[in-house]
Amino acid sequence: MNTYGERFRVTTYGESHGPAVGAVIDGCPAGVRLDMDLIARQLERRRFGAPRQEADEVEWLSGLMDGITLGTPIAFAIRNKDVRSEDYAHLEHLFRPGHADYTYYAKFGVRDHRGGGRSSARETVVRVVAGAIASQLMPEVGISTRAVGSQNPADDDTCGGMVDCTITGLPAGIGDPVFAKLNASLAAAMMSIPSAIGFEMGAGFAAAQMKGSEYIDRWKVDDGGCRTATNHCGGVQGGISNGMPVEFRVAFHPVVSIPQPVECLGEDGSLSTVGIGGRHDRYHIERAAVVVEAMAALCLINYMI
Amino acid sequence: MNTYGERFRVTTYGESHGPAVGAVIDGCPAGVRLDMDLIARQLERRRFGAPRQEADEVEWLSGLMDGITLGTPIAFAIRNKDVRSEDYAHLEHLFRPGHADYTYYAKFGVRDHRGGGRSSARETVVRVVAGAIASQLMPEVGISTRAVGSQNPADDDTCGGMVDCTITGLPAGIGDPVFAKLNASLAAAMMSIPSAIGFEMGAGFAAAQMKGSEYIDRWKVDDGGCRTATNHCGGVQGGISNGMPVEFRVAFHPVVSIPQPVECLGEDGSLSTVGIGGRHDRYHIERAAVVVEAMAALCLINYMI
Amino acid sequence: MNTYGERFRVTTYGESHGPAVGAVIDGCPAGVRLDMDLIARQLERRRFGAPRQEADEVEWLSGLMDGITLGTPIAFAIRNKDVRSEDYAHLEHLFRPGHADYTYYAKFGVRDHRGGGRSSARETVVRVVAGAIASQLMPEVGISTRAVGSQNPADDDTCGGMVDCTITGLPAGIGDPVFAKLNASLAAAMMSIPSAIGFEMGAGFAAAQMKGSEYIDRWKVDDGGCRTATNHCGGVQGGISNGMPVEFRVAFHPVVSIPQPVECLGEDGSLSTVGIGGRHDRYHIERAAVVVEAMAALCLINYMI
Amino acid sequence: MNTYGERFRVTTYGESHGPAVGAVIDGCPAGVRLDMDLIARQLERRRFGAPRQEADEVEWLSGLMDGITLGTPIAFAIRNKDVRSEDYAHLEHLFRPGHADYTYYAKFGVRDHRGGGRSSARETVVRVVAGAIASQLMPEVGISTRAVGSQNPADDDTCGGMVDCTITGLPAGIGDPVFAKLNASLAAAMMSIPSAIGFEMGAGFAAAQMKGSEYIDRWKVDDGGCRTATNHCGGVQGGISNGMPVEFRVAFHPVVSIPQPVECLGEDGSLSTVGIGGRHDRYHIERAAVVVEAMAALCLINYMI
Repeated sequence: MNTYGERFRVTTYGESHGPAVGAVIDGCPAGVRLDMDLIARQLERRRFGAPRQEADEVEWLSGLMDGITLGTPIAFAIRNKDVRSEDYAHLEHLFRPGHADYTYYAKFGVRDHRGGGRSSARETVVRVVAGAIASQLMPEVGISTRAVGSQNPADDDTCGGMVDCTITGLPAGIGDPVFAKLNASLAAAMMSIPSAIGFEMGAGFAAAQMKGSEYIDRWKVDDGGCRTATNHCGGVQGGISNGMPVEFRVAFHPVVSIPQPVECLGEDGSLSTVGIGGRHDRYHIERAAVVVEAMAALCLINYMI
Repeated sequence: MNTYGERFRVTTYGESHGPAVGAVIDGCPAGVRLDMDLIARQLERRRFGAPRQEADEVEWLSGLMDGITLGTPIAFAIRNKDVRSEDYAHLEHLFRPGHADYTYYAKFGVRDHRGGGRSSARETVVRVVAGAIASQLMPEVGISTRAVGSQNPADDDTCGGMVDCTITGLPAGIGDPVFAKLNASLAAAMMSIPSAIGFEMGAGFAAAQMKGSEYIDRWKVDDGGCRTATNHCGGVQGGISNGMPVEFRVAFHPVVSIPQPVECLGEDGSLSTVGIGGRHDRYHIERAAVVVEAMAALCLINYMI
Repeated sequence: MNTYGERFRVTTYGESHGPAVGAVIDGCPAGVRLDMDLIARQLERRRFGAPRQEADEVEWLSGLMDGITLGTPIAFAIRNKDVRSEDYAHLEHLFRPGHADYTYYAKFGVRDHRGGGRSSARETVVRVVAGAIASQLMPEVGISTRAVGSQNPADDDTCGGMVDCTITGLPAGIGDPVFAKLNASLAAAMMSIPSAIGFEMGAGFAAAQMKGSEYIDRWKVDDGGCRTATNHCGGVQGGISNGMPVEFRVAFHPVVSIPQPVECLGEDGSLSTVGIGGRHDRYHIERAAVVVEAMAALCLINYMI
Repeated sequence: MNTYGERFRVTTYGESHGPAVGAVIDGCPAGVRLDMDLIARQLERRRFGAPRQEADEVEWLSGLMDGITLGTPIAFAIRNKDVRSEDYAHLEHLFRPGHADYTYYAKFGVRDHRGGGRSSARETVVRVVAGAIASQLMPEVGISTRAVGSQNPADDDTCGGMVDCTITGLPAGIGDPVFAKLNASLAAAMMSIPSAIGFEMGAGFAAAQMKGSEYIDRWKVDDGGCRTATNHCGGVQGGISNGMPVEFRVAFHPVVSIPQPVECLGEDGSLSTVGIGGRHDRYHIERAAVVVEAMAALCLINYMI
């Protein structure tokens, strides 16, 4: 299931070392002039500091005439150009620790060993394009992120970190009861990002240690309308926004492609120590933040159109 | 969207103070004798210590003949019997702090003020029935929970806590790439439970502070097959199970119906202090754990049939 | 898949001789006072002349407060009361010709032999309730039907017929390109009705013999706005309504439960001649027309909300 | 909604005069070597005699390694090369009679006037590729078509016709009760093809005039297993296949782009007579038959994987 969303449906495709990555966006309203600069800026932010240098040029295949959406599917492709598949030749029959090599093989019985294939963070470039289009459809909504809690990676190691996201301008009443709660959908959207390992709304895990009387967000009525004095719930109650900023945090584990040699598992069950090569980040949180913004936009737009 | 799942589809219904809560389960295989004792036991665990005493008797409306599934939709209803709607009469035009009263009103323009309506934890009784059916279809999979980190509630207050869940017996290869990652689906399932406010897989938020060389789960090959020495990833890599136990934690904020009087917001914008009455838990983690198990079963079954 | 619709989602349940038939309707807007008289009238029309006499009393289980929709799932049950399962005891191991006995058995390996189970036209009572609710949400749209082409059934036989349906008041622009064309969705909706065996829009099969110059609906501009002089296309072009009446015809094969004894196939492969008993229509087109109206409403509402 | 299918999901894109048409196929099993010759043959059959000459070269963007499916989305693009958009310049503000120009405009408020845009039969090339892949996954199933009932088009006119389709090798038990009946899904699939205007299973509209005793398909047990002496139902009972050949007929209205000048409607409400130009079939039934086969394959595969 490579489709995200029920109304603004983004179906993505592409392996990291195949011809291209891209998507078909179905459900985008007609008559919208796409802000290509916004898309380019987000792609630039995502690309910043990446060891693999891709131009990330978006080739538009359908759904636009003179840059304006037709209401039909918007298809695009981004070519994989800076591909060095030979870097991975020695890994054809090996499963790297910490990667998805083994699990893809267990599921599919076949895999693209060149880079991470479909599990590579390369696929997030597509999310960034789609998210930028979605955010353009909600000009009143502001989505901002901040990298927190990261360490400096040592020379021979990698590190993780966290991203705080704040969504402003969302009116009260956005979300759904029971299964499609806004917080549940945000959780799924964020946990689908490569390396994501934790998610919390508002006070999050700290709320588990609070007393009810501490936790409850008290009403505070003033000229600004109905608000609450605190925002422990993160702006969502019963799965529906309450008009306060929506606030959540995503934890990312460290980059699993570490510079040191590691022991890999062979398809034959043997272990062998190899340097896994390829070109990888050692610190990815600033770049992950851009993907957090994209997924937040894709999540929200499905409630709003 | 009150349906959970694409293959084992559970569509739930019911307000806490309406005639009944229940569900239609579509996609259950034919020819299965439902284990009514298992369902009753899980309902009993969920009910334990609840202030509102419901018999939670399940009335089966369709899909069964002589207790055996027909492959057609299984519909059931659980009557709301111990309903004291008069307890809520004074809240008809008030929004309690910390509840979903205001957000439902913002979304729907109308709400059932008697208890939480659709936002009440009463709806989770339906999840427990459906989850018990799902778990019966995966006899090789074990789902267990443990309440952690709770405090004793003071007399006049409530508390939250956390639930650790471990899933054993899941083979490698269960899950999906990109958007429908197993961890992403588990996150959505858990965050859809009333009061859930945080979710983490394996090492979770702590992983954000690790170095890559610490975080990576090293291969450990022995008679037990392919395993890893640690399980920081929580048994899922690239969205797909790796054969290790699937481990995650869910944080729940405290019960928001506190015994102390609280300031409520009126529909007219005024504030007034009232005791909100009704009958509510002060500690709900043991009961939430049963719902965590149910949602874990509902999440998994959709990848396995 | 017992759910109809993506936006106004009707999930039905129930066997003809089980406890009840019913549905959960998800996606109905909040704040609507249901017109219970309209529902009762359509049920009365559907019931008219049916050999099995059911009161068809609708028990509302959720989603309503004081008769007004809450925006939450509307669940209802209609009890099967006039059930004479003993009429079917002799058919427990037999497959009637023309029925779905054999195909259900082939698919599920188990079946409810009492009446048609899930394949019985009994399930259409649920469609009529849901359709009446849907039609109430589109007061500007008129859906009318007319039975055509039926013969009088002989005493010892049954007959089929056709239903013409006309939808007025539908604005231009309703429908979708490519797969979810309005005509394609109408076709699926109609062909899902028990006994339906053919569907055509506008000029239908006769159009296959026309020349293009005869077939094309010419523009006719007058005070009434943009219209066409003929309506061979049935009001839909490229899958989208053009503002003309939407016109289609549904063919129904004869009732397959004929009064004469028939040869049944045994589970052991033997053939035996039996009177199949039960209580069945011999002419069902007037009743089918009510279901055509219901399905037309359910089809349209999904494009309109 | 430009996606077809729940399990083998084909999301198509592309306007007739945009850069490309194509699709993303999600849900194709891993490890399958695609039969590129089969795809090419079906494309050749579809292209035969078409006035617009496209090479229809399929560019594979993802999901394959060395021609073998990876289990990940298969994306492809087919460039629109033989595009003469200037042929349509005079139609920018005109709605042709019989076309979808007006309805697209009514729905989207904007349209690609160059050719039919998304409503053009050009999009069916994508269905043919996807259908050929689907049919390859069901080698035991045979899908064949026959053009019937067509006239020879006069020099200055166009004609329609019908396609008979027979599916052999389908076991009993394929289909679903109630809404997702196999015949209902086939109806939707066929009626979604450009120019389709009627659909019937087995005896079809003629069955509406039969008596029940004539219509019922009697059992005929012999060495070949359970069969029926006639196949009036078209191989489907209660929405589920009975093991007999599945037989249906699709009626197509004549090509609406006729060689004669026609009166077009202007956006300003005026009428003007123009030759609509472009390059169009005058007889399209042989080519439609290839699309019928493709859609039959796409319909079936969703029940079979």
